[in-house]
Amino acid sequence: MSDLSAVKTALKTQAVETPSWAYGNSGTRFKVFAQPGVPRTPQEKLDDAAQVHAFTGVAPTVALHIPWDKVDDYAALAKHAEERGLKLGAINSNVFQDDDYKLGSVTNPDPEIRGKALAHLLECVDIMDATGSRDLKLWFSDGTNYPGQDDIAARQDRLAEALQAVYERLGDDQRLLLEYKFFEPAFYTTDVPDWGTAYAHCLKLGPKAHVCVDTGHHAPGTNIEFIVALLLREGKLGAFDFNSRFYADDDLMVGAADPFQLFRIMYEVVRGGGLDSGVAFMLDQCHNIEPKIPAIIRSVMNVQEATAKALLVDPDALSAAQTSGDVLGANAVLMDAYNTDVRPLLAEVREELGIDPDPMAAYKASGWAEKIVAERVGGTQAGWGA
Amino acid sequence: MSDLSAVKTALKTQAVETPSWAYGNSGTRFKVFAQPGVPRTPQEKLDDAAQVHAFTGVAPTVALHIPWDKVDDYAALAKHAEERGLKLGAINSNVFQDDDYKLGSVTNPDPEIRGKALAHLLECVDIMDATGSRDLKLWFSDGTNYPGQDDIAARQDRLAEALQAVYERLGDDQRLLLEYKFFEPAFYTTDVPDWGTAYAHCLKLGPKAHVCVDTGHHAPGTNIEFIVALLLREGKLGAFDFNSRFYADDDLMVGAADPFQLFRIMYEVVRGGGLDSGVAFMLDQCHNIEPKIPAIIRSVMNVQEATAKALLVDPDALSAAQTSGDVLGANAVLMDAYNTDVRPLLAEVREELGIDPDPMAAYKASGWAEKIVAERVGGTQAGWGA
Amino acid sequence: MSDLSAVKTALKTQAVETPSWAYGNSGTRFKVFAQPGVPRTPQEKLDDAAQVHAFTGVAPTVALHIPWDKVDDYAALAKHAEERGLKLGAINSNVFQDDDYKLGSVTNPDPEIRGKALAHLLECVDIMDATGSRDLKLWFSDGTNYPGQDDIAARQDRLAEALQAVYERLGDDQRLLLEYKFFEPAFYTTDVPDWGTAYAHCLKLGPKAHVCVDTGHHAPGTNIEFIVALLLREGKLGAFDFNSRFYADDDLMVGAADPFQLFRIMYEVVRGGGLDSGVAFMLDQCHNIEPKIPAIIRSVMNVQEATAKALLVDPDALSAAQTSGDVLGANAVLMDAYNTDVRPLLAEVREELGIDPDPMAAYKASGWAEKIVAERVGGTQAGWGA
Amino acid sequence: MSDLSAVKTALKTQAVETPSWAYGNSGTRFKVFAQPGVPRTPQEKLDDAAQVHAFTGVAPTVALHIPWDKVDDYAALAKHAEERGLKLGAINSNVFQDDDYKLGSVTNPDPEIRGKALAHLLECVDIMDATGSRDLKLWFSDGTNYPGQDDIAARQDRLAEALQAVYERLGDDQRLLLEYKFFEPAFYTTDVPDWGTAYAHCLKLGPKAHVCVDTGHHAPGTNIEFIVALLLREGKLGAFDFNSRFYADDDLMVGAADPFQLFRIMYEVVRGGGLDSGVAFMLDQCHNIEPKIPAIIRSVMNVQEATAKALLVDPDALSAAQTSGDVLGANAVLMDAYNTDVRPLLAEVREELGIDPDPMAAYKASGWAEKIVAERVGGTQAGWGA
Repeated sequence: MSDLSAVKTALKTQAVETPSWAYGNSGTRFKVFAQPGVPRTPQEKLDDAAQVHAFTGVAPTVALHIPWDKVDDYAALAKHAEERGLKLGAINSNVFQDDDYKLGSVTNPDPEIRGKALAHLLECVDIMDATGSRDLKLWFSDGTNYPGQDDIAARQDRLAEALQAVYERLGDDQRLLLEYKFFEPAFYTTDVPDWGTAYAHCLKLGPKAHVCVDTGHHAPGTNIEFIVALLLREGKLGAFDFNSRFYADDDLMVGAADPFQLFRIMYEVVRGGGLDSGVAFMLDQCHNIEPKIPAIIRSVMNVQEATAKALLVDPDALSAAQTSGDVLGANAVLMDAYNTDVRPLLAEVREELGIDPDPMAAYKASGWAEKIVAERVGGTQAGWGA
Repeated sequence: MSDLSAVKTALKTQAVETPSWAYGNSGTRFKVFAQPGVPRTPQEKLDDAAQVHAFTGVAPTVALHIPWDKVDDYAALAKHAEERGLKLGAINSNVFQDDDYKLGSVTNPDPEIRGKALAHLLECVDIMDATGSRDLKLWFSDGTNYPGQDDIAARQDRLAEALQAVYERLGDDQRLLLEYKFFEPAFYTTDVPDWGTAYAHCLKLGPKAHVCVDTGHHAPGTNIEFIVALLLREGKLGAFDFNSRFYADDDLMVGAADPFQLFRIMYEVVRGGGLDSGVAFMLDQCHNIEPKIPAIIRSVMNVQEATAKALLVDPDALSAAQTSGDVLGANAVLMDAYNTDVRPLLAEVREELGIDPDPMAAYKASGWAEKIVAERVGGTQAGWGA
Repeated sequence: MSDLSAVKTALKTQAVETPSWAYGNSGTRFKVFAQPGVPRTPQEKLDDAAQVHAFTGVAPTVALHIPWDKVDDYAALAKHAEERGLKLGAINSNVFQDDDYKLGSVTNPDPEIRGKALAHLLECVDIMDATGSRDLKLWFSDGTNYPGQDDIAARQDRLAEALQAVYERLGDDQRLLLEYKFFEPAFYTTDVPDWGTAYAHCLKLGPKAHVCVDTGHHAPGTNIEFIVALLLREGKLGAFDFNSRFYADDDLMVGAADPFQLFRIMYEVVRGGGLDSGVAFMLDQCHNIEPKIPAIIRSVMNVQEATAKALLVDPDALSAAQTSGDVLGANAVLMDAYNTDVRPLLAEVREELGIDPDPMAAYKASGWAEKIVAERVGGTQAGWGA
Repeated sequence: MSDLSAVKTALKTQAVETPSWAYGNSGTRFKVFAQPGVPRTPQEKLDDAAQVHAFTGVAPTVALHIPWDKVDDYAALAKHAEERGLKLGAINSNVFQDDDYKLGSVTNPDPEIRGKALAHLLECVDIMDATGSRDLKLWFSDGTNYPGQDDIAARQDRLAEALQAVYERLGDDQRLLLEYKFFEPAFYTTDVPDWGTAYAHCLKLGPKAHVCVDTGHHAPGTNIEFIVALLLREGKLGAFDFNSRFYADDDLMVGAADPFQLFRIMYEVVRGGGLDSGVAFMLDQCHNIEPKIPAIIRSVMNVQEATAKALLVDPDALSAAQTSGDVLGANAVLMDAYNTDVRPLLAEVREELGIDPDPMAAYKASGWAEKIVAERVGGTQAGWGA
């Protein structure tokens, strides 16, 4: 796509979903460093998310995590969002923090615990009905730490059974997103460790089941854009959980560790029609040492920059070079787009959207950071509750 | 399976297929160290394979590689095998050593080259008809070295088309085994890089298409036994290419780098019914610095030892511990079998089979090594032809 | 060492240090699953450690972690240990859990925070004086999450300065153990990421500074026994932190993930004289889902089994095969020892030590597990305080 | 360094050494795809290298590999180079392709083979005397494939002995560069697997011994720029072997796989004074499927672009942000330089050097590619001789 006005249109209509939990405290098993001004309530998380949307123009929805964002009245929460120009996004389930889940949730050998986990997942669909959310995101921490601890195949059977029950509960316009993860918190087996496992389950479930690609959840050296291309080809790419990593599931700001990889991923998205096919572009990050809101603004901008570069790839020149076996020429077409400084283009896009061309500076000048530090005193800061 | 006589029966009927090319020279891109006495012809490879079977009792078939084992008369070759107590096994295709395949074989952007590659694959099925082989093993070196070099999704389309054509050519009792590999010789994308890709293609092809798991073809840290359990659960595990590795596709002797992993894999095979469901257990190794025949005997013994330990796992005790959530107890049941010294049991099994209880010593005493060094003088030693 | 009585003597005099924190609760960033009966105080941790020593006979010392094990009277704590047949072992410093250390402790750009961190390290030497501990173990979580965040070389300068100050404070019989770690909790740079960095600092510090090898702190594929051999050759191997891992710093029971690797490590220890040269053999593990005390007993037994196998390697046969370039023969000598079932030998060793030959069963029968669950009610369970 | 004229001066005086072997054929163990027009002699390699220098202006020296570039008269070869505007660079030894080296060269258990290997290394210093080369680059493929195969520590002793002998032979202005490599062609141990091992040896040898960092020779996830910063701090960084990789030692064009990493490396070089302290910047790549000369031109340009971006980092702004603990601000200073499109700046630099601003297009237009295909007919193409 090299028509500049089409590029701009695509960039203006792009939507990045931010996760409610990224506005709260997070850390490692060694320490959570609390930050001043962090939200105490789901409402305050939405207030912060509204800032991100105000300054970037492309972050109109917020993903919720249940029970971290549990409220009595989800309609009221949705209204709180709407009043700030936002909508509620995907509902993320949590079946990993109850003491019962020590040996698994939906794959636990104990049928009672499996029942409890399934009930929570179904409750999440109830919440989706209330919030109007389209997507249920399922991540299971289920797995084992020691060889022999449990039966690998039996756990797959239990998983399939739970997924089937959830799938049947979904409404016509609702989707199930199955996330995979290489390891952590389980260290020997993970019940959904790779895209192949997620894909196999989604295929059996049906058209409302899709795979969610978290960019930090792969083995070292895995070619993520290849997976993206494959899932798009199969019609099974449902969403991204964006973040970046040098080692494991580091959950750093997307684009911070390997911006070229992010560009290659976004190129495959563009190439495979993923900008227009219902794929959800979500962040899933941990801002352990940097301030949350500007880190999220920066992350949204990093996705924008990678998308802009991907849109600038000249498809005709690329195809011509590929077809003729011109290795260096084809690579050069891609690199030419990557090496372009797209920041001026994005500044233009922002001005045409009526917002400040420099979101980081504008946020800094807004005084919001100082305001929340001053006002959010007392109460319990939001966090993972680990 | 803890009934000792059943364990022995299973060990006596086990069959490990050895690869013709492991009897020839191999090496790395840096150097192939030729060894004295190495076969010059497919017939001589079979002569060596017959030694491995004679001393182990469980290596009755030999995989061929076309064109490395190309002969004018495959029926005569099969007869040569039979006269030595062997049968010909899987046919391995080679679409990676012709100059035309620099940018791919069945996924090449050039349709003429794709046609040439497909013709070779179909020729391999012709050879299967002549040799009576059940399995066609497909490994594609196809991929790209540089981002942008070719279109990922288009290459999948081309791959699917070729696989479909081969599948349709298969006879009723013939199977297609699709091998995957993480990387090498392609360094950016590999067209079948993981089990998920192989599985997705095999699923579409139909019941005669199965996945081949090469134990050296995974990303660092990949849990291979998990993949084995999954593929068995799906009825899609067709074969193993056994070898071992510390780093990449090192192709060391199976069981040499991580004997505990080999045991875990064989445990999942036993658990999932893989000993009796047509799974082919093949070696695919490179004996770059050690003598070939004893290295292959050792490898067959390593598979036997891992299988014996897997068979000794007490399924009732394991299941009881798993069901009750006894993490340490369940792990201990597995480790108890692993820590058992099964060499005396295997010596008994060999004696009951009428062979020497110590294959390595018996081969050494046989004088075969000295004989082939003395006799195989002149001619061109077999190798990879790289 | 193939003289059996010498092997037994070595096994009887072996000493494995257990870490106080392994008796408390631990988990991942996602969840800490508390266990009933877990100690509330350093004294109760020692009570549990005494059980491990009582049933294994080879765990006579306990490492402390400051401030997790902070007490008013360390002499009294040492006496508590002695009354239970134990001694206090290494002192582990903690400069990663204070809010001030968000951007580093001794490498922090802020000199005041560096001063605070150094003061804690010096306080730990004071505690060593009180407890009679020989070793100060230094692990720094210091590092950065984002490229550019801080100056890599400047952080090395600050680290060197702090280490020098600590070194100068050490008494004549005290040692500093510098631990390295590949990543976590820092995700871009870690200030002591590998053995080379630790070695370079220890070399400059002098003879009382040694490297601590944590078996879980390496990049994928790293040959740990090679590092062990090198450090022993240089006289710089001070200690092990034993645990095992499939992926990252999983902190599973030592020997659980790769028992062959543990054997290879212990072989290099034996080969390099490490059993008799002051190397400390410590556990550093997290029993997140399994009961703590039996997991630690199992871990000590795993170290014993690996050591027994390493001692059984026939040095003359190995050397003869190595010198003559007999690749398969040399490997076979090593594997022969590894494949030996050493459990009967260790049962004998235990009986000669006057303890039960089956530590796991004996602990289970002792009733201690039930006793601590019943008695340790109320109070705050020990944990990492993250 | 933000003064633009200083940046330009640095870019004009930068020198990238190209390796003679990159102009010849190369491949993987599976296949070497020969290319038309490839040099048959060392002289023709220099002819091609002269093209790279002519079109980039910053590739004035060529590394030789002995015996691949063995000639009778090195003075004449040096003169051939000079007539084309080039100088001969580092001498690379080869002790991995003789049949004797199957089990090692300088670390071989056989003292005769060690003597032969050492003699070759000393011969390389003789050649340096003849060519006027400053640097002897030592890469050893030595290692083992199987546990137990040889004694790790004994091999270090043999290595140290050989290095000492070579070191003593060096002239006053000559240097020894010790390269390390994680794995391949050895698969269990490599005798110099990491920077720590190379550093420890170089430290003992003395000031003329330096470490060579090959950017493809590390474990997955290794932070290479950290190693660069450390070695510069210790005065022990001697050279780079540039290339890039997704998986193992892929030897792709430098900057092709992770341009951000290359930038971070060059930033540490600039930061640590490495542009002016005798560090050699060499390519070491394999152009298996792409045409050699343009691939090398592209690689030189990639190094230039990374260097330009590194030079554009604002040191004062960075230092201010780092000192004040502004994580996002410090990262932003670095990213601002990285995100700059430096191609116009480099075009200017080239014009000021009197060469074409677009080296790729200029080379293409020159007709050299067609000329060598037409002229270099017959003879044996240069390659690795594996």
